[in-house]
Amino acid sequence: MTAEILNGREIAKDYRADLERQVNELKEKGVTPNLTVVIVGNDGASLSYVRSKNKAAENIGMESSIVRLDENATEEEVLNTVESLNQDKKVHGILVQVPLPKQVDENKVLDAITPEKDVDGFNPINIGKLYTGQETFVPCTPLGIMELLKHTGSLEGKEVAVIGRSHIVGQPVAKLLTDQNATVTLMHSRTKDMVSKIKDFDVVVSAVGKPGLLKGADLKDGAIVIDVGNTVVDGKLVGDVDYESALEKASYITPVPGGVGPLTITMVLNNTLLAAKRQNNL
Amino acid sequence: MTAEILNGREIAKDYRADLERQVNELKEKGVTPNLTVVIVGNDGASLSYVRSKNKAAENIGMESSIVRLDENATEEEVLNTVESLNQDKKVHGILVQVPLPKQVDENKVLDAITPEKDVDGFNPINIGKLYTGQETFVPCTPLGIMELLKHTGSLEGKEVAVIGRSHIVGQPVAKLLTDQNATVTLMHSRTKDMVSKIKDFDVVVSAVGKPGLLKGADLKDGAIVIDVGNTVVDGKLVGDVDYESALEKASYITPVPGGVGPLTITMVLNNTLLAAKRQNNL
Repeated sequence: MTAEILNGREIAKDYRADLERQVNELKEKGVTPNLTVVIVGNDGASLSYVRSKNKAAENIGMESSIVRLDENATEEEVLNTVESLNQDKKVHGILVQVPLPKQVDENKVLDAITPEKDVDGFNPINIGKLYTGQETFVPCTPLGIMELLKHTGSLEGKEVAVIGRSHIVGQPVAKLLTDQNATVTLMHSRTKDMVSKIKDFDVVVSAVGKPGLLKGADLKDGAIVIDVGNTVVDGKLVGDVDYESALEKASYITPVPGGVGPLTITMVLNNTLLAAKRQNNL
Repeated sequence: MTAEILNGREIAKDYRADLERQVNELKEKGVTPNLTVVIVGNDGASLSYVRSKNKAAENIGMESSIVRLDENATEEEVLNTVESLNQDKKVHGILVQVPLPKQVDENKVLDAITPEKDVDGFNPINIGKLYTGQETFVPCTPLGIMELLKHTGSLEGKEVAVIGRSHIVGQPVAKLLTDQNATVTLMHSRTKDMVSKIKDFDVVVSAVGKPGLLKGADLKDGAIVIDVGNTVVDGKLVGDVDYESALEKASYITPVPGGVGPLTITMVLNNTLLAAKRQNNL
């Protein structure tokens, strides 16, 4: 079997075309969705990631701006910036790029973003609403993974291994998969004989950041593989799964790059549109 | 093998003795922990459960009161009651007994309890803090289950099946088990061949409410069984697991009644003490 490639760029393109249509509808009603990203310091990779979100927003007709603070900014300065964006009626979605410099308490800053504009879905109240089934913003990578999985058929009754227990990816995607009636096993660095267990699972979502963690031979025949890993090796972005060998064993597989990544940014836009609609009761 | 019985009443008794000691210390500092329970309507089972929490609090030297509202109380009346308890400096922990009558939106009421007094841990912000590793109140049944499991040794590397995906028991206990480095599979009504899979697991936590769901023959030899089920059958409280046959196969097992139940109430007291300490910076 040669796997069908889940082309994240193509899937994202279609999704963004639909978002663009909705943005235009909103603009006709006088509301232009605005995503504002706060970045502290000069880290090149962070800056380029922030600019790509920025550009993606503008490409579908949203407004987007970047607020840059000096790398020596105090916690109070960062909190004041967030607070002024909370108050600004023209801003619908706020992102704070992490990691933050060590003089700034990351949890404190993320908690300060008003839940209504927290398009990353990292504010505890939004996480709590996710777990209690209330209206919320779902974190973007998990949401993007679910969008990719829609292209592979129903998840009902499927056995899914999620590898990695972060509250950014592993835990929320486990929750979303459970909501779709999949049976999820949440694996992590302390799971015994992890690799040899993978053969039992219909779907594998790997969010570890360890190139070569899984090979084709480790997979169940016809498994669906979602590779969230992205590690730079010799200047190239690689996932957790050995792509070439997995391609021969899986039924569907995401490439790295071009798999989950484009969907994550797409879901930032999705959540910003949602925020603009909710804030204007549209 | 005959299982060791995890005697919830005994374990709870020891735990409450320690809480009582801490309550006395707090009283010497001028703070008497107060648990207030709101109940709407006249359901006999609910009333008797509320009274048992009440009595348990008083037994360890806490203050406790019950606020009773008529079964026809409006949502506004219930919300006003919660708000006045939020404001009352003598009250440290607030419980609202569920289910509420249908004219009252349950989520709205639970969300209205200030997170600082939410000793059930059902407020979204407290649930979100649980998932992001921040200071919170952990829901009482999951916390009680973890206390029982402390008596069975380390959970590191263990494979655990949690059956039932509610946000009251299944999901948060899965999170707490994962934090202890166990590998958790969250099963539910749509899990394929569930019963036959149970044989692969070192620990089984069943929170379904379906008597006879599991029998001894379904368990791995030496499994640890935590039975959260409590269903009234012919006037008797029974769990999800067939106790007699499981006793011969498990290494540890909780009886029903007298297993998880006493620990749940104990953890209400635990959280009320914690609330009183936090509100007084003690």
